[in-house]
Order: sequence, then structure tokens, then C-alpha cells
Amino acid sequence: MNQYGKVLTDVTLNDRFWNRFRETLVREGIPYQWKALNDQLDADAEPSYCMRNFRIAAGREKGDFGGFVFQDSDIYKWLEGVAFSLRWHPDPALEAIADGAIEAVAEAQQPDGYLDTYYIINGLDKRWTNLKDNHELYVAGHMIEAAVAYCQVTGKRRLLDVAIRLVDHIDSVIGPEPGKLHGYPGHPVIEMALMRLYGVTHEEKHLRLAKYFVDQRGQAPLYFEEEDERNQNRFFWRDSPLRYRYYQAERPVREQKDAEGHAVRAMYLYSGMADVARETGDEGLANACRDLWESATRRRMYVTGAVGSSEHGEAFTFDYDLPNDTVYGETCASIGLVFFARRMLLLEPKAEYADVMERALYNGIISGMQLDGKRFFYVNPLEVVPEACEMDAHKRHVKPQRQKWFGCACCPPNLIRMLTSLEEYVATGAGDTVYVNLYVGGRIREGGLSLNVETNYPWEGDVKLTVTGDAPWDGKLALRIPGWCGDWTLSVNGKAVKAVPCQGYAVLEGPWKSGDVVELRMDMPARWVRANTRVRENAGRVALQRGPVVYCLEEADNGPSLHSVRVGTEARAESRWEPDTLGGVVTLTTPGLREKADKPETGLYTFREAPDAEAVALRWIPYYAWANRGVGEMRVWIRA
Amino acid sequence: MNQYGKVLTDVTLNDRFWNRFRETLVREGIPYQWKALNDQLDADAEPSYCMRNFRIAAGREKGDFGGFVFQDSDIYKWLEGVAFSLRWHPDPALEAIADGAIEAVAEAQQPDGYLDTYYIINGLDKRWTNLKDNHELYVAGHMIEAAVAYCQVTGKRRLLDVAIRLVDHIDSVIGPEPGKLHGYPGHPVIEMALMRLYGVTHEEKHLRLAKYFVDQRGQAPLYFEEEDERNQNRFFWRDSPLRYRYYQAERPVREQKDAEGHAVRAMYLYSGMADVARETGDEGLANACRDLWESATRRRMYVTGAVGSSEHGEAFTFDYDLPNDTVYGETCASIGLVFFARRMLLLEPKAEYADVMERALYNGIISGMQLDGKRFFYVNPLEVVPEACEMDAHKRHVKPQRQKWFGCACCPPNLIRMLTSLEEYVATGAGDTVYVNLYVGGRIREGGLSLNVETNYPWEGDVKLTVTGDAPWDGKLALRIPGWCGDWTLSVNGKAVKAVPCQGYAVLEGPWKSGDVVELRMDMPARWVRANTRVRENAGRVALQRGPVVYCLEEADNGPSLHSVRVGTEARAESRWEPDTLGGVVTLTTPGLREKADKPETGLYTFREAPDAEAVALRWIPYYAWANRGVGEMRVWIRA
Repeated sequence: MNQYGKVLTDVTLNDRFWNRFRETLVREGIPYQWKALNDQLDADAEPSYCMRNFRIAAGREKGDFGGFVFQDSDIYKWLEGVAFSLRWHPDPALEAIADGAIEAVAEAQQPDGYLDTYYIINGLDKRWTNLKDNHELYVAGHMIEAAVAYCQVTGKRRLLDVAIRLVDHIDSVIGPEPGKLHGYPGHPVIEMALMRLYGVTHEEKHLRLAKYFVDQRGQAPLYFEEEDERNQNRFFWRDSPLRYRYYQAERPVREQKDAEGHAVRAMYLYSGMADVARETGDEGLANACRDLWESATRRRMYVTGAVGSSEHGEAFTFDYDLPNDTVYGETCASIGLVFFARRMLLLEPKAEYADVMERALYNGIISGMQLDGKRFFYVNPLEVVPEACEMDAHKRHVKPQRQKWFGCACCPPNLIRMLTSLEEYVATGAGDTVYVNLYVGGRIREGGLSLNVETNYPWEGDVKLTVTGDAPWDGKLALRIPGWCGDWTLSVNGKAVKAVPCQGYAVLEGPWKSGDVVELRMDMPARWVRANTRVRENAGRVALQRGPVVYCLEEADNGPSLHSVRVGTEARAESRWEPDTLGGVVTLTTPGLREKADKPETGLYTFREAPDAEAVALRWIPYYAWANRGVGEMRVWIRA
Repeated sequence: MNQYGKVLTDVTLNDRFWNRFRETLVREGIPYQWKALNDQLDADAEPSYCMRNFRIAAGREKGDFGGFVFQDSDIYKWLEGVAFSLRWHPDPALEAIADGAIEAVAEAQQPDGYLDTYYIINGLDKRWTNLKDNHELYVAGHMIEAAVAYCQVTGKRRLLDVAIRLVDHIDSVIGPEPGKLHGYPGHPVIEMALMRLYGVTHEEKHLRLAKYFVDQRGQAPLYFEEEDERNQNRFFWRDSPLRYRYYQAERPVREQKDAEGHAVRAMYLYSGMADVARETGDEGLANACRDLWESATRRRMYVTGAVGSSEHGEAFTFDYDLPNDTVYGETCASIGLVFFARRMLLLEPKAEYADVMERALYNGIISGMQLDGKRFFYVNPLEVVPEACEMDAHKRHVKPQRQKWFGCACCPPNLIRMLTSLEEYVATGAGDTVYVNLYVGGRIREGGLSLNVETNYPWEGDVKLTVTGDAPWDGKLALRIPGWCGDWTLSVNGKAVKAVPCQGYAVLEGPWKSGDVVELRMDMPARWVRANTRVRENAGRVALQRGPVVYCLEEADNGPSLHSVRVGTEARAESRWEPDTLGGVVTLTTPGLREKADKPETGLYTFREAPDAEAVALRWIPYYAWANRGVGEMRVWIRA
């Protein structure tokens, strides 16, 4: 173990909240998405073509390439998710299907190791001519990630060998040596993928290539510019305010201070940067990550953990620009934020990183999936008026209901791999300390420690951690005190203990023996949230949060015209566990005022007092569960 | 005179407020725009190509067509404005330039009467193949309007003869007869142009053609669809929510209930419809105009008289959808609204129409021009954060400062022709009544009546109307009581008179003799405006209006972060005439609160009370004068 932390991987989950999501995925989501990738959904769902492309590439079937240039990545993300799921939910039938998919992938691989069905079908002579936009390295990255996960869980090397051959091929084509392309991916992901591969192979070449992609990015002369000229590629963002910022390639990564451009690409790049920084001990690179983290999460993040303020480029815009109704907030971007957060947590154990991870997980990520696992949001708005999504072209990317599938279906399989691998986000270790980052029921094992965690989080704030196992353990136990938590108490074996949180963690010294019980009781009232006054869109508005869960008002509970609703922030919210609502949620009720709707005859503009308002009880539901009861308005930030 | 009203054209203006604008136009705007049309502006202004196209079309010069397909219209609108200006500001040198321009136009006309430099230069074989998008009828319409105005003012028929020959050509190509194209313009304007031509020629053919364009529009089978198929034209709006609504052609005009699609096209079409309805006594068509008027002005208009909520298609969106920051609000669209309003006023003398006319004129139209007449807004936002215009692609159409010129330069010459012809908007006549619609200093003559109007409107609410002339006049005088006016008194020859307004007009019976003095005293306090509660974006916000003038806050007076400013609506605004500010304006001061700006370190989301606020004095300037003191924030609707 170097100076940095590591992920604790010997974790099993048994958590009331997450079990439901994960069982839905295993029962519905994974089979549903396999159908989708094989074009077996209803006719009104967008086709995928994904598996068909592999069959065509392998020569088993005739036809044209279908879908986006990065279509291959969908099966890789699905396979990665399947791999993770097999770890906690063995399923020989599913594994057999996955093995079959892996065979289809392997069959398409070219003798020289190349593997991307787009170019295999459309002509290999054009490969590697457009790293900027054509996603070959992106697809390869997801392939590598799937291969590592599948091998780690099942022990089967078939896909890993394919991946290693592909990486060897890439290494022969791209790199600093004369005669190679001095390029890097337009869409990052291969950086963190290579680092994961390196974690398994310990092959210097894999680390070196990851580091090259990170270091070379944005260097002058700009590879993308040269490439465009050489190959007469189109530069779609030429006249956009984004330009090369879209690709996080406007300058070398160590000089980047703001989270810019396409939000998913940004998050994936920063994750890879943090991986390289940790592995190589490169504090300059780590500092760049810190700057980018601050930009992304302290100035450019929604209260739901969504990132990406604009549909234009699915991108960041500028500091404190966080419109609720035209937001992009792609599910994948929040997932990427969690990737980034965990890696920052490994660079330094600060609870701030885990706070953001939690914010994204309990809000803007799981909002991406319908409760039945069969429909998905790509965009996760904080304010929706269905008529506007239909009639205002600039809000058409915002959907008032989840979709069955997408032509660009990055989000659904990303949700699978995120939620099936939740074990890897629970705890980290550094030195002799075990950091508990997420409060999730289950068991954490590390060295001599075995820690049983019981909680009804996020609905209740009590967490009971019981030490089990044979031998005493001498390390420290660091429990995150969440940013949302104002009051908490801690006891060990029934006795209150005081702990001054350090970087957001209450640290308890050992030694620990079997039977020791640590109890963390976090007071969890609903609290009004105010945005930094620099956020224009939220001026005079509040949101409501309880524990890590952000709430919203829906038309289904509160009628339409939610812009006419005001809250009284003096009153406390009543919370109630409703087991039969939305799969079981705590709902909140607060007093509010609803301004009486003018008649159209009132005219548009009048000189008069503020409109009359009547007292109403407002019913709030967790944001993540919105749009599960038909189409209607929804709003997170309410006038105060 | 039929049952409907007529414009009173024997009006001279001598108005403190408007003189300044009109003198700026004559002194700066008209010469500046002539330079622009001849590509003689600074290199950083967008080129026009307009006059060059005419020279190329006439064979005097070699070259390619430059600019948009509708580029010809710019010189026509300029000529129309010049014509109007010559009526009140004779200028032989300018007239000689205009005559020269007319010669250039006439020289380009083809032997068969056709005239559109785009097709003359690019190939006449393609003419009339794309009425939907290629603007031949639009360009013709503006030509006709210029020709009529120029002939009426100067007595010179040169351009009128060109126009009549062009109309004959159009009539030979388009119409209901077999073998002709059963089409109509994608961009209306020719309808009202032909009605103006008919007013001069009284040729049945001109009326018939206008009526055909109105009646045929949107009929099934849809001409635009057939035309696209026949000529393999592109349908840009196929996948937009707008589709044929962009062109107001989704259904026959009598079935249209909502103001839809491209806002300028809509306003021009409705104006033409009202002209045809009035001329033909078609009450069905007049009713369609009434419906469209209500939709446009009671559900889809900004407080500044701007229309067109979205940049997408420069178009209307849906009822009460009036975003302040992504608004389009094209200067031309507000001008079109004034055209439409005046025609509605002729259909029926209701002050509502004149109220809207006034709202647009004193706010959203003159905001389109810099006070020096040399820079222009195309888009007239009600809320601007300069950084957002730069960094948020969906606000890039919103400019924080006026531009020198535009590739598509419809607005600047439209401003000229609007303001130079203001005389025609002041008064209307119907039966034995003279309706005074706008309070503008000057003289109105009609029949035996000569009415001298003195006022310092819009800064003061007193209007003195003195009857002059030789013979007594027996008609009624109807004075508009503006919608903004809560308290007013009326006196005749010093004696208070009571008049119950009818349709918004206080009607005074005659007979009138020379020396009679009517005094209307309108109380003109600044008043807080509230939007209909259905307008989401203005919930909890107020605007400030004094007389017809809508005010705004600018960063220049009130600092940045105007979203952090709240007003106290209990207090009265102090008004002050400031002769040296912004060309002379009444400024307003109100008490307000400014929330203290959070530091970035405060973080994005915190649980806390409302931010501290400090009392401030807010300084308001007329909206039309914003962005004349450098780049900064501006906001009309302020949190209350």
C-alpha cells in the first residue's frame, strides 16, 4: 500500500434500500437490456443493432453497421454489469449468455488485435483516422473494463485475452514514438480502463499507455487539429463556445482549472487522471484533479448530483450556471462523478468526496431508472413542465417520462454497472484505517476486520456496526459524518464517545474485538436547502432534503402550476414512511401557499397586489422516484 | 368610408420624444444604412451585398449573389423608410440617392416583369420552385410597399411601375387557374403590400391576388408539401415541433386560433388578413384575426411588446410561455405587431389595440436601436447576463450589446420605415369620429377638423388638444384612455367633463370650433406590474411601468447579480426627469433589498436561513434605453 488509499473489495451488501434496486436490475434490468441489445424490445423502442453489428463483423451475418459509432460499448458495459452482478447473485444461465456474448465479441476481433465493429464493417482502411470523434479508444476502454471485471468475478480469461491483444494493437499504433499517432481519445474512459487492467496485469506497458493518454491530451500542436487537417475530418464544435473544450483538450490537463465540455467525458477523464496520479504519485496531476473537483462540485453541480448544465454539447457551461429546466444532467455524468469521487477519496480521505458520491447515488443517478427497471432517463431535470418539453425546442431533450430505449443508449447499461458494483464504493482503506464512506447494510472485510453493518439508511439515520471475526484488529475505524448531518452521537459498546471529525470522519481507535458494537445515530430531520446566492436560477427558492435524499414536488400530489407554490420555511416537515408508495419511501409534508390561478381574462399584465394565496399542505417525494406515476409537472427548487 | 375605419394620413408630428429618434434616423440611421447596403461600413460589420446584387443582376458588374435569398428586401425597406422621411423632412440629396437606387432596381427587372436578384443571378429556370423558403414573394411584397410609399410621397411612378409589372408577372404565374401554381408565400408580407397597392391602383386584380394568398394558405393538399416533393426541396422544420406552423400554413387561416410559428411571418400574415377582411367585409376572416390577436397579445406577448418566445424558428411557443432570458422578441416582430394592431383598430376602434401598439412602440421596438442610431438589436431580451450569452449556447442569440449590422439585416431598415411613418399610427377615423390613438405632439387634420396636440408624453400625462381651422366641425372626438392609466380627468375649454370610456375611448361630442381646447390629464405614477399567474417565469416577480414606458434595472446603476435584488412593492417610486441621461429620460428610484453575495467558499448548497439582505436604492431606466452604457446585466422582472 503506498501513501494513497485503496478500495476495499471484500464487501457484501445486504441493504434494504439498495437491495430493491439491485434485485430489480437482476430480475428485470439485465434481461431487458440484453433484449434491447439484440433488438427484441417492442417496435416503439429505438433499435440498438449492437449484437447484430458483432455478428456482421464476424462474418456470421450480412448487413450494414447500425447505430452510433460507439455502439459496441453498450454490450461491454452490459457485460461489466453482469460480471459485477454474478459476484453477489450467481446465475449460471445469465453467465452462459454472457459467455456467448463474449464469444461473439472475440469472433469479431481481427488477426492484428483490432476490434471495433464500426470500422470492421465499414472498412479497416479508415480506422484510427478520427480519434477525436469516432470513439475507437472509448469502445476499447469499455471493453477493457468489462474484461477485467468478468475475469475478476468468473475467473474466465477469454475476454481479458481479447482485451490485452487489443491493447497491444493500440500500443503499436499510438504513442510517443516516431511513426505512431501522437493522439488520445476524443471520449476518455480508456485511461481508467488501462489502470484497471494494469491493476490485474501489472504490465508496465498498460500504465505507460494510460499515462501517455493523460499527458498528451491538449498538448500543442493539438493532435485533433492536425488529425482533422490530415484526414479532412469535420469539426462539429468549430463555431460553438465549446470548441476543443468539448473534449477537455483545449490545454494540457495539468493546466485545466475548470470542469469544461462534455460532462461524461470530463468525469471519465478526471477519473483516469486521478488513477494515474495515485499510481505514479504525481502530486501535480493530483492537484489538477483537486482543482477540477472543486470546479465541478463546488460551482457547477446540481443539488441532485447532476452535472452538465446544457444540452449543447451535453456540457458544463460556467460557474453557478445551473438552470433547472434546460439542464442536461445526464445519468452517465453523475455516474462518472461517482467514479471521480471514489478516486479522489483514494487520493485523500476527505468526507467531501463521499458526500458528493452519496448525493449523486441517492438522487441524480437512480432517478435515471424507472422503479420497475424498464425505462430510463438520459436527462435528469430538476424542473419539468411537460408542455414545454413538447413545444419549446430548447427543452426537447428534457423528457417528462422515462424512455424504453435510446439510439444512444449509454445510460441504461451504465446504471447496471454502477449499481451492481456498489460494494466497491462502500469503504476504503488507507494506512491502518478503514473508512466507511457509505452507510449501506452488509459486511466489510479487511485484513483482520470483519464489520457487520445494519441500517435503514437513507430513511433512518441510525447505523449499527458490529465487529465480528476471530482475531482482534488493531486499526482505526473512520466513520463519515455526512455533510447533511447537523447532530449525531456515537457510542462504542453502549458508551457515548466523543470524536472530533477529521476531514469529515469520526475516527475511532482500536483495538477491536469480536462483538464490539459501534453505533452512529444521525439526526435526520428534513432541512431546507439554499443554493449559493450566485446561482441565479435558485434565488429566492429552497429545496428540501432529508438525509442524503433530495425531495421534489410532483403534479400527481400537488396539482399543476408548481411555479405558483411557495413554501413556509419556518415550519418543520412531517416525515412518514410509506411502504406502499413508490416502492417504499419516506414522504414529507410541509405547509405551503398556492397562489390562486388567474383566469385568462385577467390579461397578461396588470397593476395589482400579489395574487391571493391559499394555505395548502405540500406533499414531497424523493426526487429519484419522480415520474413513476404518469406525466406531470415536477419541481425541486420551490419559491420560499 | 365603409363600416370600418381608416387611417388618418394628414398628420404632422412635432413631438419632443419622437423627434429625437426620428432626427437621429434622418441624420444618422438612413445614411448609415445606405452605407451598410453598399458594404461601406467598417470591416468588422457583417457585409450586406444588397446593392451589389442589383448591379450584378443588371449586368453592370460581375460576381456571385451575396447574402441571404431575401437580401433584396433590405433596399426596399430602406426606400420605403426614405419615402416616409421625405414627407416630413424633405432632402433633395437623399431623394437623388433614392432615385438612383430605384434606377438600379429597375435595371435589374427582367423583360417579363420578374425581379429578384437571387434568381436572376443564379438562374431563372429555378424561380418559383420554392415559395416555401426562397422568399420571392416576400421580396416582391417589400418592393410593392416601397413603390407605393415612394410614389405617394414624391409623386414619382418609376418604382410603382416596376412593382405593377412585377405583380402582373406574379399574377401570371400564381393563382387558382389551372396551369398556375396554387401557392402562397412562405414569408407573408405581400398580402398587405398588395392591399396597399390596391388602395392606390384600385385594380381588382391586386385585391384578388392578396385575397388568394390569404385564402389559399394552409389548404389541403398543402402546397408546400407538393412543392417540396415536386422540386425536391428540403423541409428544414420536419423534425421540429413547428413543422408547417413555422409558416402559419398548418391549416387554413380561418381555422387558426393560436399565434404560431415564426413571429414576424405571423404578424405580417395577420396584418394582411385584417386588410383583406376590412376591404371585403369578410367578418369570418375578421374573427380569425380577433382570435389570433387575443392569442398573440393576451397569452403570448412580453410586457415590452416583444413577441416570439423562442430562438428556435424565431417563433411563438405556447400560452404563457414567456422566458425572459431565452426570448427571441425580434425587433421586426414587434413592428409587425404594430402593423397588426393598427389594422385591428381599423376593423373596430377598441383602445386595446392602441394599447398594444403603444406598448411595442415605447419599449420593444425602440430598444432595437442604439440611441445614436448606429447599432441594432435583432433580439430584445428582458433579462441578460453577459456571461450566459457567451457561454450558454442556447442564449447565444441574445446579445448584451447592439450590433453594427447583421447578415440578416431585416430589423434596422424596418425600424426606419416604422419610425418615419409614425404619423400613420396616431389617429384613425370611423364614421363621424376621430380617434386619437397615440399621444404624440403635432397636428391631425381630417375633413374640417384641425387638431393641434401638445404633450410631453410619455414623460408626462397631460395632453392638450386645440381645435384650429376655419370652419366648425361637427364630429366626435374619441380620446384613448390608455390601459396603464388609473386616474384621469378631462376638460373642455377649462370645464371638467365626465365621459364614460367606450371600448377604452372617452368620446366627446361636437360641434367643435376653432379655439376649443380639450385637456386630458392622466395621472402617471410608476406602477408595479404583475404578470398573469400562468406565466411561470414571472411568478413572484414584478416589473415597473410608468405611463407606457416599461423600466429595467441595469448593472451600470445597480451592480451585478440582479437576481439577488428584491423590490419592496409597498413603496412608491420616485421619478425624476434627467435631461442628460440616455438622451433625456425619466428615471425611477425605489427601495429594494440586495441579498449579500455568498463567497464561493460557502459552497453550493447549505442548510440555512435566507441570505442577509441590505437595503438599497434601486435606480430604474426605461427599458428601451438599456445597453447604451457598455456591457452589463439587465433585468425587467425583479423578485418581489
